[in-house]
Amino acid sequence: MKSPFRSEAEFVAWIRRRTPNQASGLALGIGDDAALIDAPRGQELILTTDMSIENVHFKTPMHPPRAVGHRALARSLSDIAAMGGTPRYALLSLAISRSTDRAWLASFFKGFFTLARKFSVAVIGGDTAFIQGPTTADVIVVGLVPKGEARRRSDAKVGDHIFVSGRLGMSALGLELLRSTRGRPKRAQPSAIRAHLYPQPQCGLGRFLSQHHLANALMDLSDGLSIDLRRLCDASNVGARVFAGAIPSPTGMDCKASLNLALHGGEDYQLLFTVPKAKAAKIPSRFGRNTLTSIGEIVRERTIQIETPDGSIRPLAPEGYDHFRRSK
Amino acid sequence: MKSPFRSEAEFVAWIRRRTPNQASGLALGIGDDAALIDAPRGQELILTTDMSIENVHFKTPMHPPRAVGHRALARSLSDIAAMGGTPRYALLSLAISRSTDRAWLASFFKGFFTLARKFSVAVIGGDTAFIQGPTTADVIVVGLVPKGEARRRSDAKVGDHIFVSGRLGMSALGLELLRSTRGRPKRAQPSAIRAHLYPQPQCGLGRFLSQHHLANALMDLSDGLSIDLRRLCDASNVGARVFAGAIPSPTGMDCKASLNLALHGGEDYQLLFTVPKAKAAKIPSRFGRNTLTSIGEIVRERTIQIETPDGSIRPLAPEGYDHFRRSK
Repeated sequence: MKSPFRSEAEFVAWIRRRTPNQASGLALGIGDDAALIDAPRGQELILTTDMSIENVHFKTPMHPPRAVGHRALARSLSDIAAMGGTPRYALLSLAISRSTDRAWLASFFKGFFTLARKFSVAVIGGDTAFIQGPTTADVIVVGLVPKGEARRRSDAKVGDHIFVSGRLGMSALGLELLRSTRGRPKRAQPSAIRAHLYPQPQCGLGRFLSQHHLANALMDLSDGLSIDLRRLCDASNVGARVFAGAIPSPTGMDCKASLNLALHGGEDYQLLFTVPKAKAAKIPSRFGRNTLTSIGEIVRERTIQIETPDGSIRPLAPEGYDHFRRSK
Repeated sequence: MKSPFRSEAEFVAWIRRRTPNQASGLALGIGDDAALIDAPRGQELILTTDMSIENVHFKTPMHPPRAVGHRALARSLSDIAAMGGTPRYALLSLAISRSTDRAWLASFFKGFFTLARKFSVAVIGGDTAFIQGPTTADVIVVGLVPKGEARRRSDAKVGDHIFVSGRLGMSALGLELLRSTRGRPKRAQPSAIRAHLYPQPQCGLGRFLSQHHLANALMDLSDGLSIDLRRLCDASNVGARVFAGAIPSPTGMDCKASLNLALHGGEDYQLLFTVPKAKAAKIPSRFGRNTLTSIGEIVRERTIQIETPDGSIRPLAPEGYDHFRRSK
């Protein structure tokens, strides 16, 4: 039950020395009752918050602390990408398990702060306490988007082409590999393990799509294509037909297993978006390191169907991650 | 291990029907990847976040769920008051213990939403998950303050009069009463128990002080006067002398015990502020239901001393609440 720091003041000082805290528009960062920011004219603010809970969102020791910090922030940055915005500020509430040592905390913050710096995000506040239970982080990110450019998940239109970024199912495959090797994976599929431990939020792509008014609906893939596509369709009052053969999935494995990972695996933090038919040709085949792939289209009938290469069509059941059904 | 709701969709729908979601400047509330708000011109945004953890910040069954919801939001509203701002939006991340039932959640949200409505705060987002451990809420509040009017804790000046609002130590007394009666207090001191279970954030007072440029330094009393006054002095590079006889403390009990509660009891969520000598007469003796009391003055020497009615002077040691020292 020993605290890794002698006092709250020592802990706050320790964090402050490491905190990325430079940002235009930041009037007051960590240390007062609250943070103060100045919103530039003509911009809307995007607010999002996501929890990362030990034994729910990560497991010790399977997830190294640096990855836990990275992933905790990545989840919220991905929400900003999903609105077409640019992340600017973050706040971190951290409930620290009594068994946590200083080395774990140092690595956690290294992962968190390194990703924050990569996206020029200033960490401007938060809260810390000890918990007699699993370590729990809640990450709040504030982003900016020019007025009128924010993209919602509810604006898909019949006839839109459905796109995804990247190769889906990689994070789920990485998780499987980590599980099956008890956290000591061999050289096989290092990219899948990297995709799971260090997902890269697609803020640049989200901004590109919103700035050029290319996407109607936009969201991020956090719980798996089958569940997230249903959410997008439900919010937009439409249905979808996707083509199994078009969905970019992990290579070097059985086709059916690969497709299952791509359809139902969560935590890819890639983007799912719909594009009016007339603009579909304007979507580049790559953005940065990721492919952009058309996987189907939005239809009027409110069902979600998948067409397999043999031409058969079946309903696509949502089997992605849902905390409320999973009883792990 | 049964969820009180069949699915995340059912839970979200249940919450949405009850959520205060009307606010000017709110472009998009709960339901998308993130919330969107429009910051009015000439205003700065205040951001704060506070956790409420079972067995740290509240205990079951001592704290009724309605009080838990109220207190979780009150802590963050008080931070906005402490900056001199007006709270506008809230986000709630809730990690729900597996043993929580639907009645507990319903009362928790009732307490949270009732206080939100009282302050015209729209609940615009959040996150929910189950936790194998104590129920944990993280509450983010966004406030607004006209540019240049925000008050910090670091601006106390030598010669300033030190003021507090309300009667200090009431929340700590209420907690003692709840503990000693195992949550079934008799009629004695209902106001202390109310102060503990349903603290009222002083947003109106904070705004009054900032709008009329009356306070130099301003903060809220969350961890007890002795520790919070030290934080204010440390941030301002000054010291303080307070007069024991002037500190408003609980009545109807032993003087020494009463003073101890007022000096070291936490969670009053009253305001602590310093006022230039020339403006001290402009501070009214009451604001709403609370007295405003001058309890001492800011001095150059960087120590905090307390003068007792018999004229003796001793250092005031910080004995307020510090999660990092307390091992409960």
